[in-house]
Amino acid sequence: MIVITGASSGLGAALANLYHQEGESLLITGRDKIRLFDVANSLDTTPEKSKVLAKTANLTDSVEVEALFDMCELQPSTIIHCAGSGYFGSIEEQDPEMIKRLMDNNVTSSIMLLREAVKRYREHPVTVVVVMSTAALMAKGGESTYCAAKWAVRGLVESVRLELKSINSPMKIISVYPGGMATAFWTTSGKALDTSSFMTAKEAALMLKQALVTTEHGYVSDLTINRG
Amino acid sequence: MIVITGASSGLGAALANLYHQEGESLLITGRDKIRLFDVANSLDTTPEKSKVLAKTANLTDSVEVEALFDMCELQPSTIIHCAGSGYFGSIEEQDPEMIKRLMDNNVTSSIMLLREAVKRYREHPVTVVVVMSTAALMAKGGESTYCAAKWAVRGLVESVRLELKSINSPMKIISVYPGGMATAFWTTSGKALDTSSFMTAKEAALMLKQALVTTEHGYVSDLTINRG
Amino acid sequence: MIVITGASSGLGAALANLYHQEGESLLITGRDKIRLFDVANSLDTTPEKSKVLAKTANLTDSVEVEALFDMCELQPSTIIHCAGSGYFGSIEEQDPEMIKRLMDNNVTSSIMLLREAVKRYREHPVTVVVVMSTAALMAKGGESTYCAAKWAVRGLVESVRLELKSINSPMKIISVYPGGMATAFWTTSGKALDTSSFMTAKEAALMLKQALVTTEHGYVSDLTINRG
Amino acid sequence: MIVITGASSGLGAALANLYHQEGESLLITGRDKIRLFDVANSLDTTPEKSKVLAKTANLTDSVEVEALFDMCELQPSTIIHCAGSGYFGSIEEQDPEMIKRLMDNNVTSSIMLLREAVKRYREHPVTVVVVMSTAALMAKGGESTYCAAKWAVRGLVESVRLELKSINSPMKIISVYPGGMATAFWTTSGKALDTSSFMTAKEAALMLKQALVTTEHGYVSDLTINRG
Repeated sequence: MIVITGASSGLGAALANLYHQEGESLLITGRDKIRLFDVANSLDTTPEKSKVLAKTANLTDSVEVEALFDMCELQPSTIIHCAGSGYFGSIEEQDPEMIKRLMDNNVTSSIMLLREAVKRYREHPVTVVVVMSTAALMAKGGESTYCAAKWAVRGLVESVRLELKSINSPMKIISVYPGGMATAFWTTSGKALDTSSFMTAKEAALMLKQALVTTEHGYVSDLTINRG
Repeated sequence: MIVITGASSGLGAALANLYHQEGESLLITGRDKIRLFDVANSLDTTPEKSKVLAKTANLTDSVEVEALFDMCELQPSTIIHCAGSGYFGSIEEQDPEMIKRLMDNNVTSSIMLLREAVKRYREHPVTVVVVMSTAALMAKGGESTYCAAKWAVRGLVESVRLELKSINSPMKIISVYPGGMATAFWTTSGKALDTSSFMTAKEAALMLKQALVTTEHGYVSDLTINRG
Repeated sequence: MIVITGASSGLGAALANLYHQEGESLLITGRDKIRLFDVANSLDTTPEKSKVLAKTANLTDSVEVEALFDMCELQPSTIIHCAGSGYFGSIEEQDPEMIKRLMDNNVTSSIMLLREAVKRYREHPVTVVVVMSTAALMAKGGESTYCAAKWAVRGLVESVRLELKSINSPMKIISVYPGGMATAFWTTSGKALDTSSFMTAKEAALMLKQALVTTEHGYVSDLTINRG
Repeated sequence: MIVITGASSGLGAALANLYHQEGESLLITGRDKIRLFDVANSLDTTPEKSKVLAKTANLTDSVEVEALFDMCELQPSTIIHCAGSGYFGSIEEQDPEMIKRLMDNNVTSSIMLLREAVKRYREHPVTVVVVMSTAALMAKGGESTYCAAKWAVRGLVESVRLELKSINSPMKIISVYPGGMATAFWTTSGKALDTSSFMTAKEAALMLKQALVTTEHGYVSDLTINRG
C-alpha cells in the first residue's frame, strides 16, 4: 500500500492516478473532504484496479495522523508526503494569520507525519518520500516565510535521517525538490505568475515515480525536478 | 538604542550587561516578567550609566511586537534577537505540544520580529542580529525539530536579505551561529549534557559584541562561534 | 549521439552498454587505450545496433578535448561526464604528486570539458550530465582532497548554470551525486572497504538513465543515488 | 609567532602590519620576492617592535612549504593563509593556462599548506586561518573557475576539520569568507569593477584580527566579512 498526503490536488492527485493505474493499493488523504473524494471517485474502481482508501486528516494534529495510519493493516511500502501550501509576498506585507497557517500546513504537518511514521515503521523497510520545493535549497526574495517553511522541513529530514542511521533502521527518507510546477497551488498563493511553461503536476509525478524505482543495492535519495 | 530580545537570561542577558556597561541605551524584552525585571534591576542605573527600558512581549504575537517597537522613539541602531528555546530527543519520542511551542518560540517569533523590523526600519541603517545555532548549519540526530526550527530561521534570513538588497535597503541582517553555550537553555531542554567545557553566555556575548564593531565600508555578516 | 567520458570502466562503461543496447550512437572516451577499446569491442556491433566511436583523450588538455568533440558531426544530445578518480587517507599522509593527479583527473578535466561544451553548444539543447559523488555534498574525514576536488566541480557547475541562465541558453547541466558504488575505482584509491553491499556500476547506471528521461516541460536537474 | 601567507599585498600585507604594530613576531611569505621584501622593509623594525622574518615560497611545492615552516623554531600560535589569486570571465572565454594557474594558486597551495601544518602541529593548539571568499559560499556567474577553486578549499577545510576532531587535535581551523575587498587582486583579475565602495584590505584585516580574539572556552570558527 502507498500512502499519499496532499492527494486532493496537484502532485499528490497526479501520483494517486499513476499508482492506481498500475494496480497499487492506495490510502489517500487531504484536508478538503469534497476535493479528496472527487479524486478518489475519479480513480477507476473496476475490480481489476487497485483498492483506494480515502480519509481526510488534519496533519497538524498528531491524533489525526495516528488515525490515518491506523487505516493501514500492514506497514505501507511507501509514504509520499505531498501536503503543503504556498504564501508569498515581501515580509513586511505578509499577514500574521496567513504566516501561521503556512507554517502549520508545511512544517507542523511534516513533523507530525514523520514522527508517526518513524514511531510505527522504523524497523521496517518503509520509504518515506518528502516533497519540498527548490525553495528549500536556495532562498528567494518574496518567499521569505515559504523558504522558512521549506528549509525547516529539509533540516527536519536531514536530522531524522541521522537518527534512523544511528539505529540501523531499514526505513529510508527520500527528499524531492520540485521547482516550477503549474498547480492550483499558485492560484491561491498570492503570487501572480505565468505558469504556461511550468511542468504540469502529471509531468512531475511521472519523473518522481520513475526515480522511485530502486535497484537491489541502491536508490535515489534526493531529487530536484525543474522546469525546462 | 539597542533592542535585545531573549534578554531575561543567557546570551541576551549577557549582552544587555555588556552594552549597558558601555553606556548604550537599551530596550530589553523577554517572556517572563520576573526574570526580565531581575535582569533590568541588576543593571547599574546610576546616572552616568545608560537608560534601560524593559518590556515583556510574546514575540509570536504581531501586536505585541508592534507595541515593543513603539517604545523606541527613534529607530534603534541595532536589534539583537536572542529569544529562543530548545527541545530535544528522537523524533518519535517528542511531544506534539512541546514541538509546537518550540516552533513558536523560535520560528514564529523570528518571523514576527523581522517582519516588524523591516516594516518600520527598512529605509534606515538598522542592524538586525539574528542569533541562531550551529544546528541551523548542520543537521544533528536527536535534534530534529530544533534543526527544523533553526533551519527555518536561516531560510527566512537569507530570503529577507535578498528582499532588502532588491530595494537597496541600508538595513543589514547579521546571522550568528553559536554552538555549545552553557546556559539555562540546556537545563530546560531535556538533553543531559556536561556543559563544563562549554562557553559561558558571557564569553559568547563578548565575541559577538566584538564582531559587531564595523569599519567604514565593511561588516561581519555571518559568524559562527564554537566552544574549544 | 551521446558522449560518455570515463567510459573505459565503472559507471561510464555501464552507461555505454545500456545506451548502446537501446540503439543510441555513442562517442566514448577514456584515458587508457586498451581498456577503452576493450569496452568498445565488447559492445555488440551487429548492424542493427548503434554506431560506437571510441577515442582516447586526456581531458586535462584543452586541445584533446577539442579533438574529442570534433568527432561529433552534429551536436550530441547528451554528454555524460563520468571521468574521475579517487585518492584517500588523512591529509598529512597524502602524497603531493598523487594529490596533483587527483585534482587534474577530477577538476581540470571537468573544467576543460565543460568549457568546450559551453563554447560549442551553448545555443543548442544539449544536456551535460556531470557525475560527482556524495562527497561533493558533505565533507568526510579521510577524504580531504577528494572532497576538495568534488566540491570544486560542484561550485563550477553551479556557476556555469548561472552563466547559461543569464544568456537564456537551452543547454542544461545535470548534477549527479552517487554514493557507495562498487567499482574498480576503490581498488586503486588506497581505501580499504568491503563493497559487497555497494551498488554495482550497472545499478547506478540504470537509475541514472531512468532519471534522465525528461517530460515536455520538466527534467531532473540534481540526483543523489545512494546504496541501501 | 604568526605565519602569514600572501603577505606581499592586500589582506596579508595589512594583517602583517597590524600584528607587527602589536609586537607579534612574524614569518611572512609571498611569491614575489621584491614585493614581499618591500612589505617586510616597510614594517617598523625599531628594537621595541617585533621580529619579522620574510621568505618567499611557492606554496604549490610541498618542499618549499616544508622549508617555510622550518623557519619556525617553535610551533606558531597562528597561521593565516591569505595567498590566492583571482581569474574571471565566462567559462568559454577562459584560457586553459590561466585556469591551471588559478587552481594552483588557490587550491594546490591551500592543500600543501594545510597538509604541512597538520603534519607538524596537529598535537599543538595552533590556529590555522584559511581566507577564502564569499564565492566559496555561493556560486556567481562569470566566476566559474574561481568558484571551483574556492569551493575546493571549503570542502578541504570541512574535511580536515573532521580529521582533526577524530583525533581530538587541539588544532583549530578558522574559515574566513571576505566579499568585496578593494585590493590589487582585482586589477589583475580581468574583471572590471568600480571598487570605491569596497572594503580596503586594512578594514578587512581589522575585522578579521578582532574576530580572532578568543575567550577561554570559545572562538569564532567561521566568519563572513562583507562590504556595506
